[in-house]
Amino acid sequence: MNLTEKQLAKKYVYNGKIINLRVDDALLPNGKTALREVVEHPGGVCVAALTDQDEILLVKQFRYPYMEEILEIPAGKRDSKEEAPLECGKRELREETGAVAGEFVFLGELYPTPGYCDEVIYIYAAKNLTFGETDPDDDEFLDVIKMPFNEALERVLSGEIKDAKTQTAVLKLKILKDSGRF
Amino acid sequence: MNLTEKQLAKKYVYNGKIINLRVDDALLPNGKTALREVVEHPGGVCVAALTDQDEILLVKQFRYPYMEEILEIPAGKRDSKEEAPLECGKRELREETGAVAGEFVFLGELYPTPGYCDEVIYIYAAKNLTFGETDPDDDEFLDVIKMPFNEALERVLSGEIKDAKTQTAVLKLKILKDSGRF
Repeated sequence: MNLTEKQLAKKYVYNGKIINLRVDDALLPNGKTALREVVEHPGGVCVAALTDQDEILLVKQFRYPYMEEILEIPAGKRDSKEEAPLECGKRELREETGAVAGEFVFLGELYPTPGYCDEVIYIYAAKNLTFGETDPDDDEFLDVIKMPFNEALERVLSGEIKDAKTQTAVLKLKILKDSGRF
Repeated sequence: MNLTEKQLAKKYVYNGKIINLRVDDALLPNGKTALREVVEHPGGVCVAALTDQDEILLVKQFRYPYMEEILEIPAGKRDSKEEAPLECGKRELREETGAVAGEFVFLGELYPTPGYCDEVIYIYAAKNLTFGETDPDDDEFLDVIKMPFNEALERVLSGEIKDAKTQTAVLKLKILKDSGRF
């Protein structure tokens, strides 16, 4: 089946700090038109970093949309769509946790909610860590936690860790570790 | 560290079909204020459904924000925040694939992009399938694909399958299957 939709018109309804929102008219495969709401985001990078003791670095952050503190792997948004994902990942890991990694492995991309958002999150695993000073953003408040990897895995499987990038990274890493690929 | 932020003011800048967008003033832990952009969404439900031949049901859909056809497990949004997630999952599975499942297992919640969006996606696994007619929404065009589970897993690990809920569900299911928990 031909599934392709075409952009007929676009209108920005919001241009903001982290996101923009546009509402487009799209041509559907059946010749009809429909509204398409698109949240634009420059994209993000996250890093599942393991210590030599097989602990994973997590950050506890208050996430305003949920009014909850949640556990996530270190992550941040790209300065622009031109910033290389790995450079962004190295910067966010260092700023949020103070860690510098000797080795990075790319674990793939994540489309968090493809129905209405264009964000792409690049996922890395990292090891051979050394630690220096943290340098969080001015409006960023977080606690850094080192958690045994198997405990983080259990908290993903039990449903306690809900963040999409963290679940995906921890689960991929488990399978890669078990098969000797990390 | 106290990480809590408080809502000081909220203003809707868009009320739409699938999402709303508000921009709030928030009180930070250090006493300063900051803008917080919040995409509001009623929440979604997805179902990783396995046939008796260990195939997973996938749908190929054109996702307008990426201008790409992507593979995902069947999913949809709740009619409202009051709709029970499991009922929504049963409806979406039937409408998109024609399948009715004899058994559902809850795999947890997913926060797709917690920095600026309040969507919660409920993840289910399902088995003991029987098939009837599909009944897609008017502006929904999709192909249903039955793929061997191990092939879907490899496509997640290789980075070809990028959708967050699909990656999380397939990876969790792999670990639960391997340990005899599904």
